[in-house]
Amino acid sequence: MSIFKQMESNVQCYANSFPVTFNRAKGAYLYDNEGNAYLDFLAGAGSLNYGHNQDELKQALVDYIMQDGVAHGLDMHTDAKAAFMQTLQDVILKPRGLDYKVQFTGPTGANAVEAALKLARKVTGRTNVISFTNGFHGVTLGAVSATGNQHHRGGASIPLSGVTRMPYCGYYGYNADTLKMLDKQLSDPSSGIDAPAAFIVETVQGEGGLNVATPEWLLGLQNLAKKHGALLIVDDIQAGCGRTGKFFSFEEAGLKPDIVTLSKSLSGFGLPLAIVLFKPELDEWAPGEHNGTFRGNNHAFITAKTALETYWADQEFEKEIQQKAELVHSYFQSVVDELGVTHARLKGRGLMQGIEFRTGDIADSITSRAFEKGLIIETAGNQGQVVKCFCPLTIETQDLEKGLKIVVEAIAEEFNTSLKMAS
Amino acid sequence: MSIFKQMESNVQCYANSFPVTFNRAKGAYLYDNEGNAYLDFLAGAGSLNYGHNQDELKQALVDYIMQDGVAHGLDMHTDAKAAFMQTLQDVILKPRGLDYKVQFTGPTGANAVEAALKLARKVTGRTNVISFTNGFHGVTLGAVSATGNQHHRGGASIPLSGVTRMPYCGYYGYNADTLKMLDKQLSDPSSGIDAPAAFIVETVQGEGGLNVATPEWLLGLQNLAKKHGALLIVDDIQAGCGRTGKFFSFEEAGLKPDIVTLSKSLSGFGLPLAIVLFKPELDEWAPGEHNGTFRGNNHAFITAKTALETYWADQEFEKEIQQKAELVHSYFQSVVDELGVTHARLKGRGLMQGIEFRTGDIADSITSRAFEKGLIIETAGNQGQVVKCFCPLTIETQDLEKGLKIVVEAIAEEFNTSLKMAS
Amino acid sequence: MSIFKQMESNVQCYANSFPVTFNRAKGAYLYDNEGNAYLDFLAGAGSLNYGHNQDELKQALVDYIMQDGVAHGLDMHTDAKAAFMQTLQDVILKPRGLDYKVQFTGPTGANAVEAALKLARKVTGRTNVISFTNGFHGVTLGAVSATGNQHHRGGASIPLSGVTRMPYCGYYGYNADTLKMLDKQLSDPSSGIDAPAAFIVETVQGEGGLNVATPEWLLGLQNLAKKHGALLIVDDIQAGCGRTGKFFSFEEAGLKPDIVTLSKSLSGFGLPLAIVLFKPELDEWAPGEHNGTFRGNNHAFITAKTALETYWADQEFEKEIQQKAELVHSYFQSVVDELGVTHARLKGRGLMQGIEFRTGDIADSITSRAFEKGLIIETAGNQGQVVKCFCPLTIETQDLEKGLKIVVEAIAEEFNTSLKMAS
Amino acid sequence: MSIFKQMESNVQCYANSFPVTFNRAKGAYLYDNEGNAYLDFLAGAGSLNYGHNQDELKQALVDYIMQDGVAHGLDMHTDAKAAFMQTLQDVILKPRGLDYKVQFTGPTGANAVEAALKLARKVTGRTNVISFTNGFHGVTLGAVSATGNQHHRGGASIPLSGVTRMPYCGYYGYNADTLKMLDKQLSDPSSGIDAPAAFIVETVQGEGGLNVATPEWLLGLQNLAKKHGALLIVDDIQAGCGRTGKFFSFEEAGLKPDIVTLSKSLSGFGLPLAIVLFKPELDEWAPGEHNGTFRGNNHAFITAKTALETYWADQEFEKEIQQKAELVHSYFQSVVDELGVTHARLKGRGLMQGIEFRTGDIADSITSRAFEKGLIIETAGNQGQVVKCFCPLTIETQDLEKGLKIVVEAIAEEFNTSLKMAS
Repeated sequence: MSIFKQMESNVQCYANSFPVTFNRAKGAYLYDNEGNAYLDFLAGAGSLNYGHNQDELKQALVDYIMQDGVAHGLDMHTDAKAAFMQTLQDVILKPRGLDYKVQFTGPTGANAVEAALKLARKVTGRTNVISFTNGFHGVTLGAVSATGNQHHRGGASIPLSGVTRMPYCGYYGYNADTLKMLDKQLSDPSSGIDAPAAFIVETVQGEGGLNVATPEWLLGLQNLAKKHGALLIVDDIQAGCGRTGKFFSFEEAGLKPDIVTLSKSLSGFGLPLAIVLFKPELDEWAPGEHNGTFRGNNHAFITAKTALETYWADQEFEKEIQQKAELVHSYFQSVVDELGVTHARLKGRGLMQGIEFRTGDIADSITSRAFEKGLIIETAGNQGQVVKCFCPLTIETQDLEKGLKIVVEAIAEEFNTSLKMAS
Repeated sequence: MSIFKQMESNVQCYANSFPVTFNRAKGAYLYDNEGNAYLDFLAGAGSLNYGHNQDELKQALVDYIMQDGVAHGLDMHTDAKAAFMQTLQDVILKPRGLDYKVQFTGPTGANAVEAALKLARKVTGRTNVISFTNGFHGVTLGAVSATGNQHHRGGASIPLSGVTRMPYCGYYGYNADTLKMLDKQLSDPSSGIDAPAAFIVETVQGEGGLNVATPEWLLGLQNLAKKHGALLIVDDIQAGCGRTGKFFSFEEAGLKPDIVTLSKSLSGFGLPLAIVLFKPELDEWAPGEHNGTFRGNNHAFITAKTALETYWADQEFEKEIQQKAELVHSYFQSVVDELGVTHARLKGRGLMQGIEFRTGDIADSITSRAFEKGLIIETAGNQGQVVKCFCPLTIETQDLEKGLKIVVEAIAEEFNTSLKMAS
Repeated sequence: MSIFKQMESNVQCYANSFPVTFNRAKGAYLYDNEGNAYLDFLAGAGSLNYGHNQDELKQALVDYIMQDGVAHGLDMHTDAKAAFMQTLQDVILKPRGLDYKVQFTGPTGANAVEAALKLARKVTGRTNVISFTNGFHGVTLGAVSATGNQHHRGGASIPLSGVTRMPYCGYYGYNADTLKMLDKQLSDPSSGIDAPAAFIVETVQGEGGLNVATPEWLLGLQNLAKKHGALLIVDDIQAGCGRTGKFFSFEEAGLKPDIVTLSKSLSGFGLPLAIVLFKPELDEWAPGEHNGTFRGNNHAFITAKTALETYWADQEFEKEIQQKAELVHSYFQSVVDELGVTHARLKGRGLMQGIEFRTGDIADSITSRAFEKGLIIETAGNQGQVVKCFCPLTIETQDLEKGLKIVVEAIAEEFNTSLKMAS
Repeated sequence: MSIFKQMESNVQCYANSFPVTFNRAKGAYLYDNEGNAYLDFLAGAGSLNYGHNQDELKQALVDYIMQDGVAHGLDMHTDAKAAFMQTLQDVILKPRGLDYKVQFTGPTGANAVEAALKLARKVTGRTNVISFTNGFHGVTLGAVSATGNQHHRGGASIPLSGVTRMPYCGYYGYNADTLKMLDKQLSDPSSGIDAPAAFIVETVQGEGGLNVATPEWLLGLQNLAKKHGALLIVDDIQAGCGRTGKFFSFEEAGLKPDIVTLSKSLSGFGLPLAIVLFKPELDEWAPGEHNGTFRGNNHAFITAKTALETYWADQEFEKEIQQKAELVHSYFQSVVDELGVTHARLKGRGLMQGIEFRTGDIADSITSRAFEKGLIIETAGNQGQVVKCFCPLTIETQDLEKGLKIVVEAIAEEFNTSLKMAS
């Protein structure tokens, strides 16, 4: 019996879908300990936007370690932290006209969400937070209250409170104006919805099934927040760091959120790191009011800084993402066209696109078939019904096409038909 | 204006006490970017029990990175994870007669606490958790509900629930039997204390002021848990990994907790890692019920495994810790003897000892003086009144003495007196 | 200074609108202590459906007191209670094919609601309850969580939990299918709406502004409850006891709710009484699990029994109510027709009808003018914008017309116009 | 099958202990419908301090009804209400130097408690409330959170929050200073006890087993409240209205609580009535913020006023209560002396005294035997182990002795021994 079977809790999850043992990874590939290569369209659930062991990042990290750079610094000042912050300001924030303060939280997305919710409640003096159907914000108690998924909510084994759920953009079909519904409830002193401290929203719901909020909806939401005295928190943990084509997923819509959470691909190397960005006037934190041992993961500062410099100093990377996104779109569009709208539906934008099937079983079967063909890809959505393409943003075009072909083949097998390829 | 002043949130904390910028660290020393060395009696708040950039760990990590070992693996199987688990079993669990399952949570202590509380609630079907005065368990919503500190509790800006507070060992003086009080309340169907899912306890309260629970109290607590159908969770995040002299802080008392949380020094290198250990029959988790992106920090697995092999394969390290603990004790005892019981009191055990002064101001002044003398040391306790010696366990004896002498000098200055040194 | 000014809390409310002191009441009239008569279109907010000091009820009560009938009996068996229950069964439940069990709660509507919510949570093992926009269910902590009004919610001064708010019938206009929305959210395992123990609903929202749920919506809601394993609670405290034309307000729709709450006019004399009716298979209460000192108000049993016998033994009273309802309707319809839809809208059904104006100020001004003309009438609605006709069901037709004419005159004055009368 | 068996919910409780059907009651006697007389040492659980159908009260009530006095007045001004308030001020408050404001809540004790807790939270801006072991404050959600009894707490079927439980006077034996414990926790910023809005306390815990707080403890508690910025709420619902010998149970200790709740015997006739008294400066209520349909039970105002005038205009009644209390004490003391401290213990003070036995079964058996002998008496305490003498305060001495003899006989039978009588 393997040590995993012997010792690891049933709570493990991905290991069930991809039952091999990996030992090496490079770029868009993972390798198991028998030497087999797997193309990685999962990318650490969006934590490896620059691929595995990216060379510049790797070199910078090894150099840092070799010269005995501070690895763990609580929240003390270090050169590595200063350099990261300076780069974040110069490369990301300033060019976008953003003057956010940075809070280093515990190095998980959930921790950043917890901090963001606390801050919003503290600043506004209100306790209610509005989150949206199919949203995912993590599983610690504060975060999971904002998360929609019943599997994760139930895990708390205690009733969740402090959050009111509202329909996301398009939840009732695109003819139903969910913002107007929200506005009506917030404007009605007898609706039963307590005045909110914040709206917390993903611009694209990664776990929720690649549901996309339109720019108009997002701007409308920002206006509603202002109107009702609530803060707008964009949880950009999965959709940020370039996944939708821009560094922030909300750039396209022209938002200026009050608070932004970032994690996953922020370190660029898969190392734990999470931050909260917020408008300077919101910085009402007292020292240490939200703390955590690993909020100064200096290894991650090194790789994060290098990633920002390498990929975001000019527009090249954005263009590259866009081209790849179009490629994915063309492949998936032709699948959808051939299967027809009753069987398949295109979801997402940028490099977080997927195909929604009628059931989770179909989607599961497709990803299993893909895995047999050497592709790691997962499902998302409330029924697990969406096959979700999450390749590294840096993937070589030929690898991207190779992976897309595997996906198409797996779908064809599942539907017992042949499908034309996009290209 | 420095980038820290410009950009970093007021929430930063340690940076206020130690206002320099570090760039290098080795063993028991931190170095600022002007080349000054600081002896580190803080050790990442207990996350650097083996010191900074320990050579074996560093080499193993760099080797792993250089061969493109998987850095981020969600919860997929990797060789690095298997090796860590095998070593944990062989070196730590088996020799102690423990057959725990391992859950990899998000890589922060708070996340491990959240998972432990969820599991206890799920398994018992009860929602109430008993935690103790002056306990610290993290600041995410589930964890901070169990934390005693008002500064952190208030940060939630929402009432906290699901936890009942009970007096810790000795809280009302060592003549008051706090276990008997607890038993009376739990045995009384009209006490207003709902039947608990778990007791969560630290054997030594690190943040709470180095309060020590006696072995008898801990065993009594374990018996009470059994009697009342509650699970015993030992939060060994700060006191574990050798800090009190044994790998687990509860070994001395001979406990077999139902659930144990570990983090901080588990990776050995200051890298984020956290696990929950629990008895196999408690493994009622459904796959993915508690998840998190960075629950497979493979860099941390590499250093953690190496640390376990390096330090815990035999009894040598335990003896070494004990000798150093005695040295700390002798220094602090003579300070306390000279200042007298109205001014100073010895706290803690193992290498988590300290001296309690009458006020937080006195303790602050002492640690500030120490910093001027090149020693990084922090305070703890409900008023910040305890100067807390948290050197790396691996510190050279001469460095330990050097640091202790600085502490004694700083105290002497503060009290405007001269103090004899221990040795 | 009057004793009221000296001693009574600011919390008093109606006394501000009707600043006289009453001392006598009969039928549809209240009399102040200077001998002025006021026609009562408030009727104890629906607690005096049979008018003040109705003669049969009064006689029965005085007889009972004179023969030293038990006044207060906790929940012990008394002849008065037996007679009430038997009459309830014979006159109300059996003819309607209902075989409910009766629970006597504390004698307030809020207490009945608290008991109903507890029972639903206990029976289903779920904690979430669905209530609706603009619903009013009382102000004790459990009840006010289900209440929509922010004024009352805020009074709790603690965040409210355990209840999810959904749009009532027609809340987004009658083209938006709020049941379909509800079904979608409850069918979606990732919507963030936890499986509900119950739906709690008023068929006509009295405090909420005389919003009427259609029979189709109510039946649909009953089906949804069944589909999703929730219980249907009809809060008939204000709309029941004949107010809408039938004894229960849900008879028209043909509902068979799992749980029904009754209070207000149940005693028939304005005496405190409240009960919960539920299907026998739901009776999972342990003895005394929900208790209260005044749950056996025997004076109220006497008047309640007499009221049931007097008014509900045949169909006459129902017909009478219907005729009066039509009269109200015709008056209000002609007002609405004349003022036009931008100024006035007809609300409600049965003898809980009203006119909605554009603002609460307009409605307030109208009710103040009416009071000057000798009519007591109040406003309802989320902005207090609905003038709400709540006369005793037993009012003489000429008194009803007299009151309606006052209302019309007051409206005419307010709009500085003349209005034709209906008749 | 009786109508009770057919229709009444299992939740009924007293009816199980006293399985007859009553139809008449006078003074200290209840009569069943077969003409049997029962001496009443339960007195509506303290709601009938002046006995059943007291003649002056009965006459005043019948007169009021016969002249068509307002029965139900919401919170409108009536002569009956004015007269009650004036009498309350003249007879009770002024002579005791109290200048409380009066809030009329829904007519149940639980409703008064809910209002008191709301007000305390509103005024202080804090949410936590301290209540005590074995306290009973009602079963609506806000009140039951403060109640200790697990049977009632569990009935909520949802976790209760907002209340911290502390040990009552003497809970750990009279040598353990529970006030000092409370002070220590409230003074410790890391104790985990959030700053309280209020302490809510009974001076004698009626349901909890006739536990008595000493005057020193109560005064100490009042001081602690002041010291920590909390309000002192005395829940005098059961112990007030003369039950302990004075009108308020806290007079003996010389307290001036910030808030007082009254109900049960306030109306004097067993009619539902509840009020909250509070210091004028606390009257931060907005109109209608806490409301309720039956908060103006005018029948109860009439009997309440008459009761205050009849019994509290001079000191005679207090003396009478004291003499009867001494009689009860002498009987019970001799029982306790004979049975010995391992079998029986005296509890309570005033006319809320009882004997604590080793188990609830013993106490139950004694009350069953007493019922067979024509005495209605109940048990209290966390195990139901206390036989609780709750006769009307107005009982004739010979009836009191008759009842006490029955109790002694029942005990003697239970212990299979003979017991000397006190007199």
